[in-house]
Amino acid sequence: MTLTLYTAAVPTCTRALNNLAAFLEKGAAYAEARKIDPAVLLNTRLYPDMFPLATQIHIANDIAQGGAARLAGAEVPVFEAKERSFAEWIATTRGTVAYLESLKPAQFAGAEDKTITWQTRTSTRNMQGTPYLFHHVLPNVFFHVTTAYDILRQAGVELGKLDYLGKPQAA
Amino acid sequence: MTLTLYTAAVPTCTRALNNLAAFLEKGAAYAEARKIDPAVLLNTRLYPDMFPLATQIHIANDIAQGGAARLAGAEVPVFEAKERSFAEWIATTRGTVAYLESLKPAQFAGAEDKTITWQTRTSTRNMQGTPYLFHHVLPNVFFHVTTAYDILRQAGVELGKLDYLGKPQAA
Repeated sequence: MTLTLYTAAVPTCTRALNNLAAFLEKGAAYAEARKIDPAVLLNTRLYPDMFPLATQIHIANDIAQGGAARLAGAEVPVFEAKERSFAEWIATTRGTVAYLESLKPAQFAGAEDKTITWQTRTSTRNMQGTPYLFHHVLPNVFFHVTTAYDILRQAGVELGKLDYLGKPQAA
Repeated sequence: MTLTLYTAAVPTCTRALNNLAAFLEKGAAYAEARKIDPAVLLNTRLYPDMFPLATQIHIANDIAQGGAARLAGAEVPVFEAKERSFAEWIATTRGTVAYLESLKPAQFAGAEDKTITWQTRTSTRNMQGTPYLFHHVLPNVFFHVTTAYDILRQAGVELGKLDYLGKPQAA
């Protein structure tokens, strides 16, 4: 079957975010069992000038959602910046998955060569669809999901690689 | 331009590994400037039962190289497990990039639907080419490059997101 940007973007990001939601549930259960204030865990960082867990989750969601929307030519949903509990972050992440699943493969037709334009805090960026997905969206989504995992692992949550990768799929 | 598994796999992994080699150079320079035994930094872990930096680099290289080789139908090179210095890890990583760049787009024709079979420590795994790339190879490569970055960041190496993502590309 011919590879499309839809296949490269949507199932890849939904899988990563579903795994994120599932290991956040383990993080929340761990905080409860160990009587750790969940807000402390959500504010844990690997280094003082790195983002805390909550921001890692925020960025993973925002880039997956905004990235897929831009490639699909859909209106880019605003990802609201606010404090959330574990339960709210998990629901938000599952909401992003539902949004991604609402996009149709046909919306991604021709996205490979489309110029994608977006605004960062400091500048306007442009990339073609294919490098935008492979050199910006996917590396960022995986970076922030991995760093969320690393923060929870370092905090003592019992996670393994399969929590990050998800259940193996057979051929 | 039609998207191919070659485009999804090779430039994505070479970019991730080139960035890894570049931020390992910063890690080596940091160890030297701070008179930190480089072997200590290469053995640093985020948590006692997580892999140290050297193994993160090893797995990122091994999965990128083996993954691309399997998708290309090429013989899978053996990735030698041995202790390496920072200079050797950087050269090894650049060697993986050179290997990936030696593969030809035509070798990936039809890889989408090919059953990829590989051996883990405990079992034989099978996946179709497309999910093998998007749900196994890329998530693993980014996981281990990110965790290498996270270890160096936590050790105090001055890295920023652009060290992980590489220089922005214009459209």
